[in-house]
Amino acid sequence: MKFSPLFWPIQLRGNVIYILDETKLPQKLVYLKAKNYLDACRAIKEMKTRAVGQVLLVMYTFILSNRQHKNLAKVAQAINVTRPTLSFKFLTDMVLGWQKQGAPLEKSTLGFLEMLKGKRIEQAKETAKLLKNGDVILTHCNVSGLMPLIAEFAKEQGKKASFYVTETRPYLQGSRLTAWEIMRAGFDVTIITDNMVAYLLSLGKVTKIIVGADHLTQNGDIANKIGTYQIAVVAKYFKIPFYVLCPPASKLKSGKEIKIEIRPPDELKIYQGLHLAPKEVKAYYPAFDVTPAKLITKHIYLEV
Amino acid sequence: MKFSPLFWPIQLRGNVIYILDETKLPQKLVYLKAKNYLDACRAIKEMKTRAVGQVLLVMYTFILSNRQHKNLAKVAQAINVTRPTLSFKFLTDMVLGWQKQGAPLEKSTLGFLEMLKGKRIEQAKETAKLLKNGDVILTHCNVSGLMPLIAEFAKEQGKKASFYVTETRPYLQGSRLTAWEIMRAGFDVTIITDNMVAYLLSLGKVTKIIVGADHLTQNGDIANKIGTYQIAVVAKYFKIPFYVLCPPASKLKSGKEIKIEIRPPDELKIYQGLHLAPKEVKAYYPAFDVTPAKLITKHIYLEV
Repeated sequence: MKFSPLFWPIQLRGNVIYILDETKLPQKLVYLKAKNYLDACRAIKEMKTRAVGQVLLVMYTFILSNRQHKNLAKVAQAINVTRPTLSFKFLTDMVLGWQKQGAPLEKSTLGFLEMLKGKRIEQAKETAKLLKNGDVILTHCNVSGLMPLIAEFAKEQGKKASFYVTETRPYLQGSRLTAWEIMRAGFDVTIITDNMVAYLLSLGKVTKIIVGADHLTQNGDIANKIGTYQIAVVAKYFKIPFYVLCPPASKLKSGKEIKIEIRPPDELKIYQGLHLAPKEVKAYYPAFDVTPAKLITKHIYLEV
Repeated sequence: MKFSPLFWPIQLRGNVIYILDETKLPQKLVYLKAKNYLDACRAIKEMKTRAVGQVLLVMYTFILSNRQHKNLAKVAQAINVTRPTLSFKFLTDMVLGWQKQGAPLEKSTLGFLEMLKGKRIEQAKETAKLLKNGDVILTHCNVSGLMPLIAEFAKEQGKKASFYVTETRPYLQGSRLTAWEIMRAGFDVTIITDNMVAYLLSLGKVTKIIVGADHLTQNGDIANKIGTYQIAVVAKYFKIPFYVLCPPASKLKSGKEIKIEIRPPDELKIYQGLHLAPKEVKAYYPAFDVTPAKLITKHIYLEV
């Protein structure tokens, strides 16, 4: 089984954490170095890594901080304020719990990550089982290496899958990451802009929609990259199944309790130094939206 | 009444047609020169001008070609193959009709344009009457100077309107043209990316949606910039009124008969020389989509 670099984008070597800089892809496959928890928190805030990359970064940061004899409660606090919509509390509470119980922190963390890897592979395999030969899958943003893995498993199961990917403005994770990793793995993929979904679905070109989620609440609502909600609404209208690859559920009761992160307008108006809009104009950039459970055909859980 | 440069973006001075180069906005307000019908057709193909600008360019091209003693049937033919989804046939047939009838071509054309200007102003005024004080309007792409004009008329009528504009990938007409002209006219405007519409509507931030149309068929279906259909689907879901500023209807019975123009993938993958996606990846770029009449709350007709 081949893995996308995005499947496990963070590595700990010696006392340095290597972070795949997702903002440089697909032009450059480069890794940033984090030497302490402050470097790590900055990388999360600046979206150098996302999704599973952030989970890995949090966990490796605890290993590193433990070796550096830092106050882990303080490290946890710094991590938990990096991004409003994302819930790292499950992770930080788990680590502080191990510490309280006197569990060997490094081994417990590495064991957890090993388990996470296995569960993610399992999640991809289970998703592949839901596919039919010839399925055309639309996805949004990036699910950290799971899409090519799903295609690989489907292939093993004798089924061919092809993909459409929304480019996912403003950061273009769809074009830069997902299309790149699917193409790299040798599967068929076509990019569309975010406003083409309804037209594409009206043509009958898509058989299933599969997206990831950054947050799952107790009632099945999910928060994911801005634009996910819109795709779910459109999927409902055209009666296309809408599947969500979920992380473990948080303690929040419903999506209404999720705080949406509003990012700086310039991240929408400027792309790699190029101005895309008048300089003085206002822009609104909510980084996530909440898709209610009623629009989700099937949750594909990651049991940890 | 002040007009946006986009309200009448084409001028004929002497024997040169000046075309506002919409691809250079908002950074530069510059005009291209067309000295014959071949220059004009190239500008249409390359989307240097759009919507009403194309209508004006077609009409001024006939005046110029007539002065240059060109075969007007040949000019009509060249114009009609520039862009598959757009119907210039109404215009070219009208001009060839005048010629056949022996009507003075230049005066007939200028008379038509004068009438068009009056009807467009009327259309903006009628639209303003539909607004309530405090309305928040979401629009997509660019309706050639009508949005600021609607806001001006609403103001005259004692009503305040503010705007959200989708950036409208891949050409960003929303950010570059609509947001620019609304801001320039002194009204409140905020840009969002194309994937934020559902989330914005779910927050109750929009009271009306108003878009233009490049093509209106006999049954009320419209073709407009890609993404319009998706907004209409989402508007229906959230029960937000969806108004369309229409051009005169074509002879086509329904939207099913409209041929959708597919443009080169690189226009989606590259923006002003900047690569937004892996070089080798496939991309799909339908320039328009068709919104069925049943999703349109109200057609605002331009009677000519």
